[in-house]
Amino acid sequence: MAGKKVLIVYAHQEPRSLNGSLKDVAVAELSQQGCSVIVSDLYAMNFEPRATGKDITGTLSNPGFFNYGVEAHKAYKKQSLSSDIIEEQKKLQEADLVIFQFPLYWFSVPAVLKGWMDRVLCQGFAFDFPGSYDDGFLKGKLAILSLTTGGTASMFSKTGVNGDFRYFLWPLQHGTLHFCGFKVLAPQISFGPEMASEEERKRMVASWAQRLKTLWEEEPIQCSPPWYFGQ
Amino acid sequence: MAGKKVLIVYAHQEPRSLNGSLKDVAVAELSQQGCSVIVSDLYAMNFEPRATGKDITGTLSNPGFFNYGVEAHKAYKKQSLSSDIIEEQKKLQEADLVIFQFPLYWFSVPAVLKGWMDRVLCQGFAFDFPGSYDDGFLKGKLAILSLTTGGTASMFSKTGVNGDFRYFLWPLQHGTLHFCGFKVLAPQISFGPEMASEEERKRMVASWAQRLKTLWEEEPIQCSPPWYFGQ
Repeated sequence: MAGKKVLIVYAHQEPRSLNGSLKDVAVAELSQQGCSVIVSDLYAMNFEPRATGKDITGTLSNPGFFNYGVEAHKAYKKQSLSSDIIEEQKKLQEADLVIFQFPLYWFSVPAVLKGWMDRVLCQGFAFDFPGSYDDGFLKGKLAILSLTTGGTASMFSKTGVNGDFRYFLWPLQHGTLHFCGFKVLAPQISFGPEMASEEERKRMVASWAQRLKTLWEEEPIQCSPPWYFGQ
Repeated sequence: MAGKKVLIVYAHQEPRSLNGSLKDVAVAELSQQGCSVIVSDLYAMNFEPRATGKDITGTLSNPGFFNYGVEAHKAYKKQSLSSDIIEEQKKLQEADLVIFQFPLYWFSVPAVLKGWMDRVLCQGFAFDFPGSYDDGFLKGKLAILSLTTGGTASMFSKTGVNGDFRYFLWPLQHGTLHFCGFKVLAPQISFGPEMASEEERKRMVASWAQRLKTLWEEEPIQCSPPWYFGQ
């Protein structure tokens, strides 16, 4: 898939962590395929997670009553969003595939990555009304969550204490990625690396590298309640 | 319920927003009941959402390989977490009831509130192994999510585009609050205030104030997959 553009949005503090290795192996494998790969290393960038008035440069449309969503939408159209948001939107606009690489924090993404979603995926850029779900503005792009968990696979099963891993994916894959028009590939979940042996952790990295070889041939998942909840 | 202690964790930028009004009316009603009420106004505090090495004062247990969860756990035990985390943990430790007041961002909490969860609810303080779910260290406390949405109630129904509102509650109510031992009261969801009339918004505030009068008598929800997914 030479020529394809990939953005990896990476949220781990430690380069030598399993998340770091999974990111590194994705950069290596996709580069070898001839893709151009860009990494947004959120902690290294000290990426701002808070959605505030600082995200709008110039004057607010209603300074007496701050509505973040409205102001960000207008600022996007006037090209007056803060430069860090514009930079990420440019990377995203160019990308054919976006990989989110992160450790699961409280059944979701770490706050620094949540902030990337809150601030970068603004109305007008990623969606509008109309212009959501299958008509979201990022349609034509692929997205995949590659994450590590604290718990084991059996803990994240239908009968496990944490419930099926698909349950916690709903807000991220349907409510965020599908909402913006992405086609979502099945998640790559590396379960419980901290409880695993060094050998098992190596297999997790190798398994991700192997999957990336044929990732472009995969069919997206169905972002619908039956896929998540089995109804 | 005179004497009860309430912590409101509040995440909105605009004091005059509906979220601001919902927070204000909760402070007023609960104070009138004789409760002592504390508000953590996360944007006003410029609360740090990023989980980094700065959260640990003093030396790291393994400076060559930074593992946030492990370091935060050890720092909690050594009382060497950063002062902003300790401050929130003290408020939480005292509280009989915690109200989370926020607008739904991407089917979840805004990043600033996600960061509060990521950083404040650390291992050793909020949970341990063993010491999760019904044995979580915050057992005996009540929690409730009071949130506003962009979409209408029908959009957040089983057959609506966004799916049942209970789906997005899973990571927050089960994966976070129940995990830490909280008993979770049914959420207070104010649907689509931006599409509502001024009259309807007033009714949303009045309805919350009314509910708070008898909140202490409510039975918690069942934090189990059947409650969320109807299985």
